[in-house]
Amino acid sequence: MDDSRWNHTLYQTQAINSEGLEGHAYVPDGIKVKTSSPLNDHAGTNPEQLLGMSLSTCLDATLEAIEHERKLPHISAVRVKVAFIGARANYEFLVHAQIKIDGVDSQTAKAMTKEAEERCCVSKLLKNSGNYTVETVTHFDD
Amino acid sequence: MDDSRWNHTLYQTQAINSEGLEGHAYVPDGIKVKTSSPLNDHAGTNPEQLLGMSLSTCLDATLEAIEHERKLPHISAVRVKVAFIGARANYEFLVHAQIKIDGVDSQTAKAMTKEAEERCCVSKLLKNSGNYTVETVTHFDD
Repeated sequence: MDDSRWNHTLYQTQAINSEGLEGHAYVPDGIKVKTSSPLNDHAGTNPEQLLGMSLSTCLDATLEAIEHERKLPHISAVRVKVAFIGARANYEFLVHAQIKIDGVDSQTAKAMTKEAEERCCVSKLLKNSGNYTVETVTHFDD
Repeated sequence: MDDSRWNHTLYQTQAINSEGLEGHAYVPDGIKVKTSSPLNDHAGTNPEQLLGMSLSTCLDATLEAIEHERKLPHISAVRVKVAFIGARANYEFLVHAQIKIDGVDSQTAKAMTKEAEERCCVSKLLKNSGNYTVETVTHFDD
């Protein structure tokens, strides 16, 4: 927190987890979610899903801004896949974002994807990880 | 997705946002959250809070594993602060995690913090961003 950029923020928030993986995460005076391990069938979300929702919202919000600048209606959708890989004490997440932009040609869709990837704040945090990829798609397959 | 590591995962999930910042993010057959801009007072969570909940849960889950290996009870809590900074087309998030481990000496708490920072999957994704810091604390101040 010696970083002086913290003194000039547009917005600050916080989240807490004190219970562990089988527990809850919450924002004081805000959202609270039940969490559970992705490797059992207990009710609850998990770090993978929370990250996926964060990134998909950030990318789609960035695409909204780009659409607005191009005088387009909101035509984009973002799906983020997150995988858990590895073994004890050496686990990793893989993150893959798929961006679908209806009603524009392929070249435009790819240019908007690249711009969103470069501008989205969560995307910027992940881009040097080696585990994050983004692609333009015409539909969401399984 | 040419990365062959996707063929050998312990778990996969996905999240979708097609509505933008004032909308919803959801996991098919799973959690659905209302989202809104952090810069207005509409109801809803946002990418900052979702990322904070993801990281705090991942770090506290990693600390649970480390506690188990050290034959300690669950004594850790994690608070993650996320800030939104910058200006149009050049926004960034800052992420700062505070780790509190009660009932161990300062040196042990710092060693456990460092181990959690290195092992937690979300921490690994953020560590090369230049915008992510972690500290050991004895209590959560404001």
